Amino acid sequence: MMREPILLTPGPLTTSLTTKTAMLHDWGSWDTSFNQLTASVCHDLLAIVHGEASHVCVPLQGSGTFAVEAAIGNLVPRTGKLLVLVNGAYGKRMAQAAEVIGRQVCVLETADDTPPSPADVAGRLAADPAITHVGLIHCETSTGLLNPLTEIAEVVAQAGRQLIVDAMSSFGALPIDLRSLSIQAIIASSNKCLEGVPGMGFVIANRAALLASKGQSHSLAMDLCDQYEYMQRTGQWRYTPPTHVVAALRAALDQYLQAGGQAARLARYQHNADCLRNGLRKLGLRPFLPEAAQAPIILTFHAPAHPGYQFRPFYEAVRAQGFILYPGKLTQIETFRVGCIGAIDQAEIEQAVAAIGRILQQLGWINQETTA
Amino acid sequence: MMREPILLTPGPLTTSLTTKTAMLHDWGSWDTSFNQLTASVCHDLLAIVHGEASHVCVPLQGSGTFAVEAAIGNLVPRTGKLLVLVNGAYGKRMAQAAEVIGRQVCVLETADDTPPSPADVAGRLAADPAITHVGLIHCETSTGLLNPLTEIAEVVAQAGRQLIVDAMSSFGALPIDLRSLSIQAIIASSNKCLEGVPGMGFVIANRAALLASKGQSHSLAMDLCDQYEYMQRTGQWRYTPPTHVVAALRAALDQYLQAGGQAARLARYQHNADCLRNGLRKLGLRPFLPEAAQAPIILTFHAPAHPGYQFRPFYEAVRAQGFILYPGKLTQIETFRVGCIGAIDQAEIEQAVAAIGRILQQLGWINQETTA
Repeated sequence: MMREPILLTPGPLTTSLTTKTAMLHDWGSWDTSFNQLTASVCHDLLAIVHGEASHVCVPLQGSGTFAVEAAIGNLVPRTGKLLVLVNGAYGKRMAQAAEVIGRQVCVLETADDTPPSPADVAGRLAADPAITHVGLIHCETSTGLLNPLTEIAEVVAQAGRQLIVDAMSSFGALPIDLRSLSIQAIIASSNKCLEGVPGMGFVIANRAALLASKGQSHSLAMDLCDQYEYMQRTGQWRYTPPTHVVAALRAALDQYLQAGGQAARLARYQHNADCLRNGLRKLGLRPFLPEAAQAPIILTFHAPAHPGYQFRPFYEAVRAQGFILYPGKLTQIETFRVGCIGAIDQAEIEQAVAAIGRILQQLGWINQETTA
Repeated sequence: MMREPILLTPGPLTTSLTTKTAMLHDWGSWDTSFNQLTASVCHDLLAIVHGEASHVCVPLQGSGTFAVEAAIGNLVPRTGKLLVLVNGAYGKRMAQAAEVIGRQVCVLETADDTPPSPADVAGRLAADPAITHVGLIHCETSTGLLNPLTEIAEVVAQAGRQLIVDAMSSFGALPIDLRSLSIQAIIASSNKCLEGVPGMGFVIANRAALLASKGQSHSLAMDLCDQYEYMQRTGQWRYTPPTHVVAALRAALDQYLQAGGQAARLARYQHNADCLRNGLRKLGLRPFLPEAAQAPIILTFHAPAHPGYQFRPFYEAVRAQGFILYPGKLTQIETFRVGCIGAIDQAEIEQAVAAIGRILQQLGWINQETTA
C-alpha cells in the first residue's frame, strides 16, 4: 500500500490536508495573533451548541479524558454526589474519574445496547436526594450507542439536579441546543467530529456555575475556573497551549462552517454510516445495535461467525489494503468497530467495504455466495 | 514583514520545517506503527539522561505543568512532605501544585538571582524530618537562572530524601546523568530544548518508586503508574495521545541525535547566548543575572533606563521586524526576556540584536552613541 491509510476509527481520525498544513507554522503562546486564534476557536465552539447566552468555552490541554475529569473536579462540589449513567467503557471511565478524585459517585448501569430509561433516572434521583449531578455519555463510543440526551436532560432538570454531558464523539455532528436543554457542562475534544488533530479538550460550562466553582478543583493544571478567569484577563492559556493543535482546530472549524456546520456534518456522517451498515450487511456481517439506538459515528459489528476468526490478522490484512479498523470493546462477545467520521465520504466507505469483503473471503471467514 | 516571525521565547519556539512536516500525517492511536513511535521516543528521552538502568520514561498528554503535577501527585506519598526550592515563578508553581492536590509542602525561598545554598538545604532537611521529597527547578525560566543540580542532589541524597527535578527548560541541552546523580524523577516537555511542538510532557521516573506509587495518584488522567503499566502491557497510551505532537517530537529527536545530541545542543545554545548577551550589552542593555548563574536558555535584561520605556510597544515594533520577544516575569523591576533556544543559530541572534538596536534607537530609548 503506497498511500496513507484511512482511519476508520473514532478519533484520532483522518483529517484534511488543509487542517494538517495549518500546523506548518510556529505560534508564540504570548502573541496577540495566537490569543485571537484561541478566542475565535472558543467562540465558534460555543456557537455550535448555541451556548452564547448562558455558557462559556474553556479549552484544556490534554486529551478528552482530561477535560472530563476537569469538569467533574470543578463542577461537582467536594460535598456533591455524581450519578453516572453507564452503558459502556466511557461511562465507567467517568465514574472512575469521579472516584479517584474523591467525589461521591454512584452508577445506574444498563446493558451495552440499552439506553437508560428516563423514568429509571427520575426514580433514582427521587430516591437519593444526595445526588447533585448526573453524568451522561451522549454517544457511547464503546459501541456507537446514542443515549437519549433530551429526555434525560428533562428528568434531571425536573428533579432540580445538574447534568454533565460527555459529548466527546457527538459534538459538532449531533445537534445539542443549550437554549432549550438544561445542561451544566458539555465536554468534547478537538479530534472527533470537528476533525481536528488530538491534543486539546474543552468544556462548555454554565458561566455562573463555573465561577461559583472557584477553589473547588482537585488539580492545579485542570482548574477550569482559573483557566477561564486567566484567559478572560490576559487572552492567554494559563500554561503552555498546544499551539499547533489549536491552529489545526481553527482550520478544521473553518472547513466545518464553510461546509454547512452541524447539519451538513451530520448528513455526511449519516450517509457514511448508512453505506457502511448496508455494505457490511451485504457481506453477511451483523450490526450489534438496532438502527434506532445507533449514532452515525462508529458502528459495532459482530465478528464473522467462523470459528477461526481473530481480530488481529483481520486488522492487519485490511490495513494492508489501506484502511485502519478499530477493535471491539465488549467483553462478552466478539465484535469489531468501524468509524464513519473524519474527512471521508461515501467513496472511502465503499472502498473500505470492498476491502473488508475481499479480505474476509480470502481468509475464508465469510461465505462467497453471500457477497455475490 | 513577510516571513514567519522567529520566536525568541522559552517554548513554544521556532521548530525546523522537518519537525513540522512530520505532522502532515494522521496516525491511528491503536496502530502498531504509532506504538513503535511512542516506544522509540521514550527510549531516546531516557537515554538522554542515561536512565536506562534505573528509570523509565512515562509520557503524558498536556503541557509540562501537567507532568509536574503528575510527578508530585504520584511520587510524593499522601503522607509525604515536599520542600520546594523557590527562586522564581516555576518554583512557586510547583509548590502551588503540591498544595492544591493536598500534599504537605514547604518552601526554601531565595532571591530571583540567587541559587539555593546546598548547606541551607541540608540544614532545612536536618531540621524537618517530615520532609520526604525536595523539588528543584533546574533552569528557572522566570529569569534563566541555573540552579546547582549536582550539589543539591548530593545533599538531598545524603539526607536520605528524594529529589524531583523540573528540567522543563534544560532537558536535552544541559547535562543530567542519572548514573551519577540521585534523582527520583525528572520532568520535561516536548517543546523546549528538544525543539518539538507543544502538547506533551514526560516524567523520567525511578522505576521502583513509580511502581511503588500505585494507587497514590490524586487524578485518573495524570496517573503515571497506570499510564506506564498500561503502555508496557499494550504499547498504547491510556487515553488519546497527541499523535501529531509525538510524531513531531520523533522528528525533532532524529535531528537532535544527528546533530550530535546533548553536547552539540548545549554548544549551539551557549554560542547563541553569548552572541545575544554581548550584542545587547553593546546596545547598553544590562543582563539581570551574573554570567555564572545564567543558563544558556533564556536571558533576562533590565529594561532600558529611559522613563518612557514600555514593553508592549517595544515588543510590537520588534515583532514587526520578525522577532518575538518575551516579557519579564519579575515583579519588582522592569525587565524583558530573550530566548536563545529553538531552531536558530548565530545568524538569527545577530539579526535580532540588530533589530532590537534599530527599534530602541527609533523609540529614543537608547543612546545613539552607545551603539555606534
